Order: sequence, then structure tokens, then C-alpha cells
Amino acid sequence: MHSLEMKVSDVGEFGLINRIQKILPTIRDENVLLGIGDDTAVIKIDENRVQLLTCDIQVEDQHFQLDQISPYQLGRRAMAVNLSDIAAMGGTPRYALISLGIPPSFPLSDFETLIQGMREQLDEFSAHVIGGNLSGTSEKLVIDITLIGEARHNRFLTRSGARVRDRIFVTGTLGASRAGYYLLKKFGLQYPEKFEQLVQSHLQPIPRIELGRQIAATGMATAMIDISDGLASDLNHICQMSGVGAELYQSQIPVIEHSIEIEKITGKSFQDLMLHASEDYELLFTLKKDANINLIKKISTQYNHAITEIGRIATKSEGYHLITQNKEKIPIKPTGWDHFLQ
Amino acid sequence: MHSLEMKVSDVGEFGLINRIQKILPTIRDENVLLGIGDDTAVIKIDENRVQLLTCDIQVEDQHFQLDQISPYQLGRRAMAVNLSDIAAMGGTPRYALISLGIPPSFPLSDFETLIQGMREQLDEFSAHVIGGNLSGTSEKLVIDITLIGEARHNRFLTRSGARVRDRIFVTGTLGASRAGYYLLKKFGLQYPEKFEQLVQSHLQPIPRIELGRQIAATGMATAMIDISDGLASDLNHICQMSGVGAELYQSQIPVIEHSIEIEKITGKSFQDLMLHASEDYELLFTLKKDANINLIKKISTQYNHAITEIGRIATKSEGYHLITQNKEKIPIKPTGWDHFLQ
Repeated sequence: MHSLEMKVSDVGEFGLINRIQKILPTIRDENVLLGIGDDTAVIKIDENRVQLLTCDIQVEDQHFQLDQISPYQLGRRAMAVNLSDIAAMGGTPRYALISLGIPPSFPLSDFETLIQGMREQLDEFSAHVIGGNLSGTSEKLVIDITLIGEARHNRFLTRSGARVRDRIFVTGTLGASRAGYYLLKKFGLQYPEKFEQLVQSHLQPIPRIELGRQIAATGMATAMIDISDGLASDLNHICQMSGVGAELYQSQIPVIEHSIEIEKITGKSFQDLMLHASEDYELLFTLKKDANINLIKKISTQYNHAITEIGRIATKSEGYHLITQNKEKIPIKPTGWDHFLQ
Repeated sequence: MHSLEMKVSDVGEFGLINRIQKILPTIRDENVLLGIGDDTAVIKIDENRVQLLTCDIQVEDQHFQLDQISPYQLGRRAMAVNLSDIAAMGGTPRYALISLGIPPSFPLSDFETLIQGMREQLDEFSAHVIGGNLSGTSEKLVIDITLIGEARHNRFLTRSGARVRDRIFVTGTLGASRAGYYLLKKFGLQYPEKFEQLVQSHLQPIPRIELGRQIAATGMATAMIDISDGLASDLNHICQMSGVGAELYQSQIPVIEHSIEIEKITGKSFQDLMLHASEDYELLFTLKKDANINLIKKISTQYNHAITEIGRIATKSEGYHLITQNKEKIPIKPTGWDHFLQ
């Protein structure tokens, strides 16, 4: 009997979220503008402001390995990943609560630099740790951060606002973090120097807070998400929540540097990396079809960070496709990183 | 060299919190009315309202054992423990974010009843899950809940308001949860029926939300905390934060039922249980010395739950003592439960 019982791993992360949503009641609270299912929850504070709330649990050997990232970097990274969810709403981070599960043998000095990393990442945005909780764990380090942000009432961006013929944009390049992950896996910390930036993309992702705020402030953006699971999966989230399809132009998706070498080292095609690689924490957003693109170019120049048009929103019945260099139309599998399935 | 390096277990939970406070900067944000160091953080929303924010991480085999508590009970309990922190401020719970670290082999049906338990505990207070995050873990279940509550701006209670000659009160009895823990440890789920209530105190603690709100609403209370670490430790938190001492009247501290038998079974004196037993989640509070006690009696009657006067606040130089039945004055050790030291 028992061996036939379904395990959580049989349904994966999204299957579990689905089940949670079925168990939880419909929220009857007019101040809850957005519950489970977006980058952050959204609570109305007053006529002008909303509060954004998100949490992210990260577990040793699932999300990070202590022999590949310093405690300081880990502290920054854990915080950055949460900040990125606030960025994806076009919000401003304000407060953090930190829960840590720590093995008793964890060095005290590492604990202190971990906290230092969190602090310095928050400092960049004048945000503060206002609470937390500690526990021992038997073996593995667990970091769970809740981040509270704020946005203007009529200016936060969700996953559900994309409309047919909207234009799709992405900030930065795609696949850098995953390439960095593979490089660390292959070389450890003795990776060739030329790959420094790729490794740093993995170890120290930059939450695109200012970009997110500026994109939201244009008033032309219709949906936004941060790329945590990978382009194919995260754009699919927008499509699902907006009730639309999409097509991506293969030739326009920004490729990481050293992509040929990375293909050889990792055995993954760079198309795979572009579409399915996780944890870049770049922003993916849609603009109204008649939007003034100069505003976006200005933001890109101001922050010295690429913003690239990579596709357009289609109808749901048109589906979800990649348009290749040869104008072939290939269905995109919306698979990304699943912390239960991989 | 490495064996001499300090570990987190060398300084314990409070030592770590102390180090965190040294690393984090002074908060320069006039809306943060209270940061780390109380039951919840307190953020000003507007002239009338404050928001209360707290999180609590609970780890399998540290805080609970899956062979002694059902997934449904565990879900309720994990939520109750967080709700209790809102109760300790005199607040009303509103929203929860749930982070779960789950072993891949965890049964799906247990996952669902765990969530169901959380839901039903929140339902009692019309509070809602608005977000969360899931991860795999290698072995142990990890539950981290962030709870958001609300209170009137001038009516929330902290740990720092107790003044010399204030009267000290506690709700319910002390030591029941720990007695239940020892009973489960000794008998497993086959414990004698007469101990049912003690075991339930451990498995299903009741967050004293309404009591907390009513106590705060009297306007006579000066400080409040929930008893999570144990009376001696939690009253010491109030003393430390308020800059005062205290004396407790041994004869007045409410004793659990079956206390003689529990002494025999556990090998712990019931005085030890009263003073140092954790996780009762009852409320400990202080009243102004000239407070109208009838108001408190009324609350006790209305909610059919004991509220007992157990001591008085002293000056800091008078210290922290237990007054025995023979009028002896014994210093109280402010020790409680430390998830790193025990």
C-alpha cells in the first residue's frame, strides 16, 4: 500500500502550489489585491500605496553549496533573490524578516558574515531587517527571507496584464547564472578567469529594483515577472495568468558571452540555456503595442543595462512558440527549474 | 586551528540574536516603531493603525516529531505559534506567508492535511494565506511562517513598558505543554487518557488572540509577552527590556493538573515546569499598580480562561526572585528553552 502512496515529488512544485490553492479558501478581504500566484502578494495600504509581500526559502545543497559560495556572498544572494520579486512588481523594498535554520556546528564567524552580506545588500536600497527567528537544524543550512516592499497603488505590475500584440522585452542576457553554475560545478572556484562575469552572475545576482521601478513608472508596461525559473517557464507564467499565447524571436534573444565554449563545457545548447536556464533574476515584461520605445531605450542607457525586444504576445489559440532564424515555428516547452523534480 | 573556531552552538540563540543586532545598522525609518527584540516588529501604517510582523521557523526533530503529531495538528500548531506572537502584542492577525522545505518522499496526502490544518487555524480569526514558497529538503520538514497582524496605533503592548510596582499576571496554567511533551516521549500516542488535556496543550496550543486584544484594550496593561521559552525566561525578557526586576509569588503560580504524577513521570519538579517549561503560549502581562482588577476578572470570565496575579515588578537593583511559601527569596535563573543549547 505505502509504496503506491503519492509523494510530494510526484507532483512537483507547481503541482503542490496548485493543491495549496485548492485547499485555501477564496480570500474575502477587499484589501488583498493579489494573493498567491504572482511574484508578491499585494495588500492595499491606502488610496495611494500598496504593500508587496514575498518569501523565499533556500536550502543548502538544493539552492546553494557552501563549498562554492562564501557566507557573505550567500547572505547577499539570498536577499537579492527576494529583492528581485519586489523588482518584478515595480516596487521599492522596505523591510526584511529573516528565518535561519542553522546546524550547531556552523562557524560563528561564517554566521556573522552571512548576516553582514544580507545587511549590505539591503543597505543598497535603504531597506532594513526588522525581525527574524533562529532554529537549529540537524545538518543543512536553511534561509528563509520575507521581504516587504511598497508601490504606488496604480503602478505595480503583475503577471496577468499582458494583452494580444503586446511587445515582449527582457533586461540583460539569459543563461549567465546557469552557465556560472555549471562552471563552478566543473572547475570549482578554480574556473578560468575569463568566465568571471558568468560565475558572478550566479553567485551575486543583481536585483533590478531601479529598472523595475522605471519600467513600471512609464505607465506603458502591462505585465512583468523576474526570471527565476527560466525564460520559457516565466513567460509561460505571464501567458497563463494573462490568458494569452506568445512567440519569441530566436535571433533576438540576448546570448551570453563565451556561449560556444559554454556549450562545449556544459553539454547544453545555448538555446537551451536561453530558454530554460534559471536564476538570472533579469526582468521580463510586456509593453502595449503602441508604446513609445524611446522611453525604454532611455532607461536602458541610464542604467547601462541592455533591454531587448524578444517577441510578442499572441492569442491563446495561436499558442506558445519560438520563431527560429529560418522562420520555423517551434512549440516552446514551458519547463524550467523545479526544486522537486530536478 | 579549526577545532578552536567558535560554532553557533557555543553562543546559543540569544547570543546569536545579540550578534545580529550588532551587525545590523540602527534603523533610520520613522515608520519602524519596533524592530528586532519583541514578539513582533511594529510598522506604522497611518495615524490610527500599526502593522505587526513576525516569523517563526520550525524544524522537524527540533520543534516537532512526525510520529507524535499528525500533519493536520502540525499545520494548526505551526500557525498557532505565530498567531501567539500577534496575541502578545494585543493585535489582530490578518495575513500569513508560508515557506515549506519538504523532503521529496513526504506523502502528498500529509502535505494536504498540513495545509488544511494551517487554513483552519487561520479561519478561526478570519486571517488568510496570501503567499508562500516551497523547496525540497534532503530529509527534514521545515516550516517557516510569517504572520502579519494589525493593532490600534496607541494600543499595542511591547515587552518594554513594565514599571516598578506594576502587577504581574499570567493566563491559563504553566507547564502543561512541556508535561504533554514528556508524556508523549514516555508513552507515545498510547498515553493514559487522563492526561489528554496536557497532551493536547502540547499538540494544539491555543493562540490567545481575543484575550490579548481585550487585555490591550483595557488601557491598563503596560507590557505583554507570550510564554514560549518559559515563565522565568519570558518574564526576564520583559525585565530586561523594561529595565526592571521582578518577584514571583510561588504559591500563586497556577499549577497544572496531575502535577504530582507528572513530577514522578518526568523526574522534573513542578516548580521547574512552572518556571522553565516552554511552549505554553499563554500570555504574561503587567498592569499598572492602581489598575481596576475587575476589568481583568471580567475578561477571564468572558473567555472562561484563568487569569492569575503571580507577582510584582521590582526595581532592577532588587533583582529577580521567587518568593517561596515560607517567604524565602530565591534568585530566579532566567533560563528557558534554547534551540541551540538543548
